[in-house]
Amino acid sequence: MLLHFLPSSRFGQTHPVALLNEFFVLAPMLKVPDHQVAGHTACHGKLGPLIDDSGRFYKPLQDDERGSKELAFYSSFSSNTRIPDHIHRFFPVFYGTQLLEASDGSGLRPHLVLQDLVSDHLNPSIIDIKIGSRTWYPQASEDYVQRCMKKDRETTSLLLGFRISGLRIYGNSESGFWKPEKKHVQEFTLEDVKLVLRKFVSSNSPIDSNSFPDCCFAPSVYGGSAGILAQLLELKAWFEDQTIYHFSSCSVLMLYEKESVMKGKSSGAEIKLIDFAHVVEGRGVIDHNFLGGLCSFIKFVSEILTGPDEHSTEACSQDSEEMHFN
Amino acid sequence: MLLHFLPSSRFGQTHPVALLNEFFVLAPMLKVPDHQVAGHTACHGKLGPLIDDSGRFYKPLQDDERGSKELAFYSSFSSNTRIPDHIHRFFPVFYGTQLLEASDGSGLRPHLVLQDLVSDHLNPSIIDIKIGSRTWYPQASEDYVQRCMKKDRETTSLLLGFRISGLRIYGNSESGFWKPEKKHVQEFTLEDVKLVLRKFVSSNSPIDSNSFPDCCFAPSVYGGSAGILAQLLELKAWFEDQTIYHFSSCSVLMLYEKESVMKGKSSGAEIKLIDFAHVVEGRGVIDHNFLGGLCSFIKFVSEILTGPDEHSTEACSQDSEEMHFN
Repeated sequence: MLLHFLPSSRFGQTHPVALLNEFFVLAPMLKVPDHQVAGHTACHGKLGPLIDDSGRFYKPLQDDERGSKELAFYSSFSSNTRIPDHIHRFFPVFYGTQLLEASDGSGLRPHLVLQDLVSDHLNPSIIDIKIGSRTWYPQASEDYVQRCMKKDRETTSLLLGFRISGLRIYGNSESGFWKPEKKHVQEFTLEDVKLVLRKFVSSNSPIDSNSFPDCCFAPSVYGGSAGILAQLLELKAWFEDQTIYHFSSCSVLMLYEKESVMKGKSSGAEIKLIDFAHVVEGRGVIDHNFLGGLCSFIKFVSEILTGPDEHSTEACSQDSEEMHFN
Repeated sequence: MLLHFLPSSRFGQTHPVALLNEFFVLAPMLKVPDHQVAGHTACHGKLGPLIDDSGRFYKPLQDDERGSKELAFYSSFSSNTRIPDHIHRFFPVFYGTQLLEASDGSGLRPHLVLQDLVSDHLNPSIIDIKIGSRTWYPQASEDYVQRCMKKDRETTSLLLGFRISGLRIYGNSESGFWKPEKKHVQEFTLEDVKLVLRKFVSSNSPIDSNSFPDCCFAPSVYGGSAGILAQLLELKAWFEDQTIYHFSSCSVLMLYEKESVMKGKSSGAEIKLIDFAHVVEGRGVIDHNFLGGLCSFIKFVSEILTGPDEHSTEACSQDSEEMHFN
């Protein structure tokens, strides 16, 4: 395993970073990202990722093989000449690793230094979709397999080939974000998933359960030559061919800026793959588990764009900003 | 469950069909198919399918829910107007059901009356590929799930997204067919699968383990606008869209006539889906398990057509019939 520590100018033993819970010291340099929708969070003295103001995301390497596997993946992927250029954009940029004080106060710990995917956004709406009907890989321990299998069967993974792991959907400047609790998200059904994917691109409040999502922004977020669907199809074409990696338990992060769309600007819609702690070698076989789940997700997005919708109102033909947002 | 019994002119209580083991009576009417490569066979007084001389295949309905589920599928599929016309050709024609003396001597039993897929062929080479990394479906009993899962992990299903269930590959008029035993087929590894898919389209003997398969017939069997790959891609496009059925534990049967290719005629290469005893409703979700496995299989076939091959000889540029067949 190649542990590649980049030279550290801002963080190091001569200039230690304060513990996270000593906020007054940490504040100007590293902070807890507030846009995180799934995974471990660095709140209340727990171990989690941090960000800085320059657009970098610091993900602590876990002690067990998850840490070393994720680092091995980033090292391999970022230097692999068989990865087409246009595919790199679907992954966070990898800047190496850095020794940092961990957010849980446990001392210095190597962190992956990655691109902060939302640093250019003000109020991004985000959904984290864990892809694959199976989140375990054949070589894993029996205990791990059983735990994953249980969760795959309890969530929508087995049925849909993916599950929503977390989300935050922007409403407006007054209501802020809808960010359901983890427990609630884990209990999402097929119908919940459909609803959330509609709410993600709707002008009406995501919190209001009485109004059916109007999908006003679907054409500009999901549709178009640079929209989410086009990006997913590009990614799919790569997965039909690539036999280098199998992305077990990996997520597609989908994000865009609602306020930007409302102002008639670009949505900034994009997808990124994240979480590579369980990537294994493809050994000449395509990742049929990821590909199947990705195709299922693509079908859900397509249906919102093309399917008949008896619920939609004429709201979309009007100025949505005037109607719903002030 | 609709049990639809077609009127029987040739078989019925007034004109009973003899038991299979009483060959002298049965011979002119029904016989055991010799082209079967997987599944239950009607030999030695066991229950299995029969064929007649008019191109029909009689598959006994099993007593448990498998029988009723397969009949329900054929009834639904054959009358479903949402199935595009060009997709019907990938399925055996369904002629209804018929009461027949079962091949195991257990008396009258309803049989599915289907198209005999190989009745037009003299010496077809056939591979039965069970598609999907998971051969069980979420609603199945825990016992069934565990049994399937064990087999999926022991065979190539989990790794490749498919497994070869059976095969027979024609060599020449002297050597006849290579038809490895079921136990041997179940133990196929990734490398075995690659080798078999090459042997299937090669001019050299499938039995000879010393000569590497030359893939002489790959362009005319796997390739071309009407070849296996083109058909698989057509099927794939449907699976990316259809949310009506989930084809658990279903097989793609791939067949062609080697002697025909050698004579410069059409290979007659085609794929057919078979075995629908575990088809369940799609409930608005694509069959991501089947699709993923199908894409993996497509990749294997594509690689034989396009991949570099250090083993190939110049045999293919010569008249293969003169070289290997007399």
